[in-house]
Amino acid sequence: MSELRVWAPSAKTVELVRADERTPLTRDGEHWTGPRPAVGEDYALSLDGGPPRPDPRAPWLPAGVHGFARVPELPPLTAEAPAYGLDDAIIYELHIGCFTEAGTFDGAIPELKRLAELGITHVQLMPVGAFPGRWGWGYDGVGLFAPQEAYGGPAGLRRLVDACHREGLGVLLDVVYNHLGPEGNYLRDFGPYFSWRHRTPWGEGINLDEALSDEVRAFIVDNAAMWIRDYGFDGLRLDATHALLDTNATHILEAIGEAVASAGAERGISPILIAEQLTNDPWVVRSRGDGGPGMAAQWSDDFHHALHALLSGESRGPFGDFGEMHHLARCLTAGWYFDGRHSNHYRRSFGRPYDLALGGHRIVAYNQNHDQVGNRAVGERLISLCGPERARIAAAMTLLGPGTPMLFMGEEYGATTPFQFFADFADEGLRGDVERGRRRELKEQGFGEAVPSPHDEQTYLRSKLDRREADPETEALYRDLIALRRRTPALRDGDLTAVRVEHGPRWLAMQRGDVVFGFNLGPEPVTIPTDGVPLLGDPSPELGTDRFGVWRGALSSG
Amino acid sequence: MSELRVWAPSAKTVELVRADERTPLTRDGEHWTGPRPAVGEDYALSLDGGPPRPDPRAPWLPAGVHGFARVPELPPLTAEAPAYGLDDAIIYELHIGCFTEAGTFDGAIPELKRLAELGITHVQLMPVGAFPGRWGWGYDGVGLFAPQEAYGGPAGLRRLVDACHREGLGVLLDVVYNHLGPEGNYLRDFGPYFSWRHRTPWGEGINLDEALSDEVRAFIVDNAAMWIRDYGFDGLRLDATHALLDTNATHILEAIGEAVASAGAERGISPILIAEQLTNDPWVVRSRGDGGPGMAAQWSDDFHHALHALLSGESRGPFGDFGEMHHLARCLTAGWYFDGRHSNHYRRSFGRPYDLALGGHRIVAYNQNHDQVGNRAVGERLISLCGPERARIAAAMTLLGPGTPMLFMGEEYGATTPFQFFADFADEGLRGDVERGRRRELKEQGFGEAVPSPHDEQTYLRSKLDRREADPETEALYRDLIALRRRTPALRDGDLTAVRVEHGPRWLAMQRGDVVFGFNLGPEPVTIPTDGVPLLGDPSPELGTDRFGVWRGALSSG
Repeated sequence: MSELRVWAPSAKTVELVRADERTPLTRDGEHWTGPRPAVGEDYALSLDGGPPRPDPRAPWLPAGVHGFARVPELPPLTAEAPAYGLDDAIIYELHIGCFTEAGTFDGAIPELKRLAELGITHVQLMPVGAFPGRWGWGYDGVGLFAPQEAYGGPAGLRRLVDACHREGLGVLLDVVYNHLGPEGNYLRDFGPYFSWRHRTPWGEGINLDEALSDEVRAFIVDNAAMWIRDYGFDGLRLDATHALLDTNATHILEAIGEAVASAGAERGISPILIAEQLTNDPWVVRSRGDGGPGMAAQWSDDFHHALHALLSGESRGPFGDFGEMHHLARCLTAGWYFDGRHSNHYRRSFGRPYDLALGGHRIVAYNQNHDQVGNRAVGERLISLCGPERARIAAAMTLLGPGTPMLFMGEEYGATTPFQFFADFADEGLRGDVERGRRRELKEQGFGEAVPSPHDEQTYLRSKLDRREADPETEALYRDLIALRRRTPALRDGDLTAVRVEHGPRWLAMQRGDVVFGFNLGPEPVTIPTDGVPLLGDPSPELGTDRFGVWRGALSSG
Repeated sequence: MSELRVWAPSAKTVELVRADERTPLTRDGEHWTGPRPAVGEDYALSLDGGPPRPDPRAPWLPAGVHGFARVPELPPLTAEAPAYGLDDAIIYELHIGCFTEAGTFDGAIPELKRLAELGITHVQLMPVGAFPGRWGWGYDGVGLFAPQEAYGGPAGLRRLVDACHREGLGVLLDVVYNHLGPEGNYLRDFGPYFSWRHRTPWGEGINLDEALSDEVRAFIVDNAAMWIRDYGFDGLRLDATHALLDTNATHILEAIGEAVASAGAERGISPILIAEQLTNDPWVVRSRGDGGPGMAAQWSDDFHHALHALLSGESRGPFGDFGEMHHLARCLTAGWYFDGRHSNHYRRSFGRPYDLALGGHRIVAYNQNHDQVGNRAVGERLISLCGPERARIAAAMTLLGPGTPMLFMGEEYGATTPFQFFADFADEGLRGDVERGRRRELKEQGFGEAVPSPHDEQTYLRSKLDRREADPETEALYRDLIALRRRTPALRDGDLTAVRVEHGPRWLAMQRGDVVFGFNLGPEPVTIPTDGVPLLGDPSPELGTDRFGVWRGALSSG
């Protein structure tokens, strides 16, 4: 674009600030325009003669979220994206800061080959839109168009995406449109970005459906399309879409879906959109022609909670709603457990029946993720709670089940490093609020009060992966499970009506196509009812405590 | 019911208060139970030893919204409801207080014969749930289960419904579930009825989707079902459904739809549910099996605004988006005008295309209603703004168009009495807020500041109909138009794809089936392109200024 264009409907003047020079922009309706700063040049905007503020659509914030913006020079995208569909997908969620010691986009590149060889199809980056401070999960982003400078900024991100494609990996990005972070958010100076009628647990809701909301919607829709078009991403994971409160006849998710599809079409790809819609509502994956917003897949925590409660024995918080084998069995055959029934945890009825015809692969399945690990007092991974044998059962269940599997970085080699909640806000009051809020919330969930400070650098450093603890046996198991899934169509088709499950209180056996998977968590051995040929795990269907097996054959119950 | 059952999840004690006697209720989970007071006995509830409060589900509030409740004895329903479907419907909206001088349910009964003879199929009562004060529109109700005492209470309402049925009229009730009135609202003492995250223009949103919301939803759903089951209503008009903010996988409208359908099934009827969903979103009339909540019909203001702007020449507020003949033509062939395009009034894009296959009769068409008349500074009806000739054109357009017609009480005989905004709050602060808020809002819409006080009894009395001004010619026209619609299937089928429209800047002609309707608002005569046989209005297709005609035949354009 050769033109700088800023939306500031109520401003009397808008100036482009460069070094000590201020140049007035020209009003064009609700917008203000002027010549675009040159590549490499620092600029900011001044509204009504006020202090310099970052452009809400700043493409680069080299001095952080409070500083001047700069127009980046982007390295070329040289490699073509692999053509994976949702039914091929094995997603790998990672946090750039914690994935490697360097904690940067470039630092991640040497690890990609390993992931590709493991059979991963898509890397999914936790949010990279500019957020305040030196470390953070990324969900408090405020510079949504500017890749975080501490990670390596725009150029680094392009290099990472290109490197992923070179390794045959697709790349998804986690994006947050339901709120903005509390620090460095100058958007409200520019226009009515926020809603008077919608609130979220993380701050004011976004103005998606009131006066002047067209430009707010465009801000989001353009951002989504930008990642696909300008950065080469192959899809997006949309954070907390249930908090995108929108009374428009066209929901913002549908508008995002259309824009992303057309940005993808220009590249000859069909980007994958995944909604973190934690309401167990099949609507979100209904197609756009059929009354839905057309997301490819959605999250549901039920599979995780069912599996976690069985393996860890935990019953606090949401796990109190689970803990019996039939909960897990239900997720495998019905998509999710909460289909409208009452949840003690939520203290209300939750969800509605999943539409089986949509296919189980439209629900993302994970046995841990950044939230489930990180939103614990000290961020323990599943393996630290239930030991390596049960963690392997979790891996097999996730990778052989009907949902689209997503791994959380490190689980594939038995990492035991925690993933803790870290942030780096500057404002003292906000730091205190965040720490107190977190402590209160975790206490309510039964974790007690010993919570590491999110603002302590050690909390961040402790959360980094340490490849030195890699367990080759675990890695081999993940590789074998993924390979089995990828070469077996019946494991990838998501056909929930074809899933057969038998279970007792402490064991479960599942057949999909000609693959049988069984595990035993009970103190006594059980015999999985199959005479299939051993493929993985224990060869004999008589399984001891915390053992599992995978066979080619059929369940022989009757 | 032989048991009194009160939801008060946080209370330590709940007592039944009768005269000076207090009897503790027994805790049953989140509820409290005890013997139901006898018919005719006054009772209240005391939470944690506090002052007597009305039961949120009080069936009768003879002493008003702050007073004791009473169990009513209901007169029998003796007559069967007529079996009108939506495609038969000619709805007549009325306000009990203003419909007759008596201003009561019983007072309305003698008027019913006249409405039935006119061809009305459904009387639609503005809200009757108990609201504070001696007069009010009813949208600030707080005793949702108790018919307003000033109107005649539960017994009076049953007599009115029964009388309607006896006259062959169906009865619909306007119900308000998106907020509660600001005075006499004791619900928050009982439980978390209100939402921390949803706000409406009229107060806090309802807790439809947070902890303990099941009972709040049941409160609404049971209320909707009660009107059908216990009072014999044949359907409901749901106020401002776009403000029923609900993130549940099952939207409250769908839950209401199910409950009302099953209450109707017990009576052998299919109740009609009409949503005031002012977002131009076809979703609301999609069936429950097809991803929608299954409302029978919805409101859209576009037809009204298009017609009103043409007839009145007004361009303030929403009318600035309309005023040309193609706006009206679009409503007749496409259901509504705003299909996603930008509205200057709303300052945003609005709506999405209507799904023509749903049928135009699923959109309610009115040339005035309580809001469009009453939300003007001095509440003028259309006839007072554009004169009787144009008001007749409005009547013909409404009654012959594809939408389901709804009349506003009095228009059928040319009433010129205003319908002004009136309320009777006791709290001085609230009275001031309401008056100031109303003055500000009307001023913003270009009405100036001369607004009668809503709290002045004269404002209420001025708004009553006065049958002495009945114009027989107007009444005859309405009777003829309704009769024509009712005997002509093509006028009732709502088939939008079959509507043919021709128009110039100031004239329009529409053909539906073999009926042609044309009108001319321009200063010069125009000839409607038809050689049909005259049915109503001017016999010759050459129409002078503000004239219309209806012919049996076809449009001969080309």
